[in-house]
Amino acid sequence: MGGAKSAREAPVLVGEFAAEFAGTLILILFGTAVVAQVVAGGIGGHDSITWAWGLGVTLGVYTAGRISGAHLNPAVTVALAVFKGFAWRKVLPYAAAQLLGAFAAALLVRWNYAEVLAAADPGLTIKTQGVFSTLPGNGTLPVHQWGAFRDQVIGTAILLFLVLAVTDLANSAPAANLAPFVVGLIVVGIGMAWGTNAGYAINPARDLGPRLASWLTGYETAWRDQYGGLYFWVPIVAPLIGGVAGAGLYQALIARYLPRPGEPEPGRIPTEAV
Amino acid sequence: MGGAKSAREAPVLVGEFAAEFAGTLILILFGTAVVAQVVAGGIGGHDSITWAWGLGVTLGVYTAGRISGAHLNPAVTVALAVFKGFAWRKVLPYAAAQLLGAFAAALLVRWNYAEVLAAADPGLTIKTQGVFSTLPGNGTLPVHQWGAFRDQVIGTAILLFLVLAVTDLANSAPAANLAPFVVGLIVVGIGMAWGTNAGYAINPARDLGPRLASWLTGYETAWRDQYGGLYFWVPIVAPLIGGVAGAGLYQALIARYLPRPGEPEPGRIPTEAV
Amino acid sequence: MGGAKSAREAPVLVGEFAAEFAGTLILILFGTAVVAQVVAGGIGGHDSITWAWGLGVTLGVYTAGRISGAHLNPAVTVALAVFKGFAWRKVLPYAAAQLLGAFAAALLVRWNYAEVLAAADPGLTIKTQGVFSTLPGNGTLPVHQWGAFRDQVIGTAILLFLVLAVTDLANSAPAANLAPFVVGLIVVGIGMAWGTNAGYAINPARDLGPRLASWLTGYETAWRDQYGGLYFWVPIVAPLIGGVAGAGLYQALIARYLPRPGEPEPGRIPTEAV
Amino acid sequence: MGGAKSAREAPVLVGEFAAEFAGTLILILFGTAVVAQVVAGGIGGHDSITWAWGLGVTLGVYTAGRISGAHLNPAVTVALAVFKGFAWRKVLPYAAAQLLGAFAAALLVRWNYAEVLAAADPGLTIKTQGVFSTLPGNGTLPVHQWGAFRDQVIGTAILLFLVLAVTDLANSAPAANLAPFVVGLIVVGIGMAWGTNAGYAINPARDLGPRLASWLTGYETAWRDQYGGLYFWVPIVAPLIGGVAGAGLYQALIARYLPRPGEPEPGRIPTEAV
Repeated sequence: MGGAKSAREAPVLVGEFAAEFAGTLILILFGTAVVAQVVAGGIGGHDSITWAWGLGVTLGVYTAGRISGAHLNPAVTVALAVFKGFAWRKVLPYAAAQLLGAFAAALLVRWNYAEVLAAADPGLTIKTQGVFSTLPGNGTLPVHQWGAFRDQVIGTAILLFLVLAVTDLANSAPAANLAPFVVGLIVVGIGMAWGTNAGYAINPARDLGPRLASWLTGYETAWRDQYGGLYFWVPIVAPLIGGVAGAGLYQALIARYLPRPGEPEPGRIPTEAV
Repeated sequence: MGGAKSAREAPVLVGEFAAEFAGTLILILFGTAVVAQVVAGGIGGHDSITWAWGLGVTLGVYTAGRISGAHLNPAVTVALAVFKGFAWRKVLPYAAAQLLGAFAAALLVRWNYAEVLAAADPGLTIKTQGVFSTLPGNGTLPVHQWGAFRDQVIGTAILLFLVLAVTDLANSAPAANLAPFVVGLIVVGIGMAWGTNAGYAINPARDLGPRLASWLTGYETAWRDQYGGLYFWVPIVAPLIGGVAGAGLYQALIARYLPRPGEPEPGRIPTEAV
Repeated sequence: MGGAKSAREAPVLVGEFAAEFAGTLILILFGTAVVAQVVAGGIGGHDSITWAWGLGVTLGVYTAGRISGAHLNPAVTVALAVFKGFAWRKVLPYAAAQLLGAFAAALLVRWNYAEVLAAADPGLTIKTQGVFSTLPGNGTLPVHQWGAFRDQVIGTAILLFLVLAVTDLANSAPAANLAPFVVGLIVVGIGMAWGTNAGYAINPARDLGPRLASWLTGYETAWRDQYGGLYFWVPIVAPLIGGVAGAGLYQALIARYLPRPGEPEPGRIPTEAV
Repeated sequence: MGGAKSAREAPVLVGEFAAEFAGTLILILFGTAVVAQVVAGGIGGHDSITWAWGLGVTLGVYTAGRISGAHLNPAVTVALAVFKGFAWRKVLPYAAAQLLGAFAAALLVRWNYAEVLAAADPGLTIKTQGVFSTLPGNGTLPVHQWGAFRDQVIGTAILLFLVLAVTDLANSAPAANLAPFVVGLIVVGIGMAWGTNAGYAINPARDLGPRLASWLTGYETAWRDQYGGLYFWVPIVAPLIGGVAGAGLYQALIARYLPRPGEPEPGRIPTEAV
């Protein structure tokens, strides 16, 4: 990639790949590390987890926003291809960059937290598997694959509905380049309210990349849930479905009623300042 | 509803109905789910509840703001009709959309959290009723109907006073489309400070919709409080009164002293940047 | 005050009095109620207290900002008179409005939380005195009057230094009418870091108004600390001194080095976006 | 420094020194005091620590931003000299001002919290050393110098990568003077996710200044870790390396792909509002 000049002349896709890689790397550097800190280090609690994941999203979007649009999530990329004209030929490269970024970040966290993970869970069992990938009922509550699948469809539908809502310039999107902050708040809220059944993966790359990293570094049961069944496919398939559903719902319930540029707006009284 | 084109030609009210429905749906998808996660899932605590309700408000307002003004609350709709010229003929449709959105969201949460609710409270008793609707003293503290009624009048008065304050363009409303964020912070604060006596419904639709959903799905005592009295009317009637009171107080104490456009402003020293 | 028209013609001071009253009322409606909720209701913890006080500041400043400048605190009013040309003849009326607002809010909270205060502390002792007014070491830690006095000088110095910093248009004050949000964050931070020795009154009106309200409604030892000494004067005198000290330090360390309008700025590299 | 006029005529460096001193003073007034409040006062928990450190950063940057660029951290100053053309001759004066500000703030906190520190830890041992300076594994977890060194390289790399990302006007930096808020959020996130191994010093001045203050006021083992080894050099050397690494990575992965002014941007779909 010999230097800044030639990179600029390279196809735009190289930059987009780098940005999706870097943005998802940032997201997972915060997301997996905060779970390691809480679960293995014993510092902080569930609210720390929700805030740090949300801040990871905010900061990942600031990192990649201008170059690639900061999808950071194959469920976002696919939904935008279905509803917003994002080029289908870019879907796989974007997803690959996201997966690679999540994988690299998880390896770094695995390395940095090696001592405390070994102390808290010498056998590298399901006890600290949640640092890297999700489990039904977070590994302890009585939720099985169907409960987790259903939850991931709904949770990712909420995510995509709201990502479209707060970035739609025809709606009341935050200005002053503050959409990344509000997008992070979406994920804070989902973590606080929709994390019980399946640990709110809501992102296939976020789950598969770190799961692979954990498996390669000693977590032998990484692909299975606490009941012994293969589980890794749930947080891949369900978010892809949920994302398209949520984006479609946004189109149906909100987007088509928004005033077009130049149209007079409906009388909006309580939030004129919005 | 035959496609985007015909919808655009339909009366504006269809869009407003859809927006109030969707915005309140979002609000209650976060609000009831976070209580389910804390009470039935054992994940997070009271602060999670206050933040997630507030984020639900913020994100619901971003969803509906441009189309309907994002009332999301009959107490807001009525107060705006009394003081801000919102059309009285729209009050019932708005309230119906809000109620329907809250009801639909609660059904979805009831479905998704079925396993953990059944595990935590097999009899579907008052123990998890608070996931859906409010109780005096949150079901455990020595507060009765009058204490809850009084509290809901005051709490909703604070809400409407502040909603008017932070969305009044003649005052120092946040710009850059960030009013929805600040409106959410109002509800975070109310949840932290005014949630003891009656669980801060401060919104008839927020309480009645999920209460109905819980009753239809097995919560037999949904309409009563822990003392056995009919309670459901308190978080309907008191917020409607309190909302008008708070909005009136804003008019009396603040609005009439605001500089009109073109008038010189009083000397504002410490917050010139505001 | 016969109606909007005559009020507009009344001296500006009437509006400023109303705004300082209303803004401080809002501040104390959140501030004392959150302590009641945590201490008497058992809901939430110290972080709830810090966030709700900060949100009370933010929302009080949004309420009063345009009309009166939203001092909400005699220590702010005096420091602005000393350093920023705020009219000395307005200092007493501002302080009176702030005191009255704090007193009225505390009465409302006293009324609304009567049942839970009676249940948690039937004798209305020092155990729940902290709902209304501050104590050295929050009533339990080994801090005496000198430790609290010193702490209140420093804490209020930090407050005024930073209020001037984030509202100084010659510095990098937040735009888009978001200074009230950041001013609230100052108080969140002070509550988290400077609340040990004296409960971060940092505001004579915030402390004296609710203290008076508690004394009039049954708290017989309201004017004394846990050691029996008269204490109420500490959170009045120390903040007035600290506020002037902090504002002076801001002038000495920062204000005089700021570029004047039209002057070229020093090369600012890392935060060009600020 | 005879008065405003002569100070304005003095070299710009005097103002920059004062601003770096004052900004770092503010940062450490929050940062060390919140740990004292939690550890010695028993008020709040780890989340209070992360929020108050982050707010200290935000408010320190608002204080110093316009005059000096608000580095507040020698690792930032060095990285900006390497990659952004910050003048090398200013690196030592900036670092000296930062160190002095951190030292002065820590002395003030040492003084104000003297009573509670004496009560909680009469021998001034490693038990409260963490109020002032960092330890491997926060003094209790099984992490040694290498684990802490590695962690500080990574943590400071994340910091610098993101500080460049959110302040790069060619990227999607927050506008409306809100970058200091987002920069504070970076440190909140790092505290929640990267505080296990070494207490997230990520700043040589933040660690050395308070360490010196604690040593001069009775903490005899201030320079050593819980295993008895000399430790103070780790949070000095590792952040300087990590900062350069992170800033370089930002250049390599993001900066060179950003559209130059006037160039057409790549199609950004999901975050048009950013």
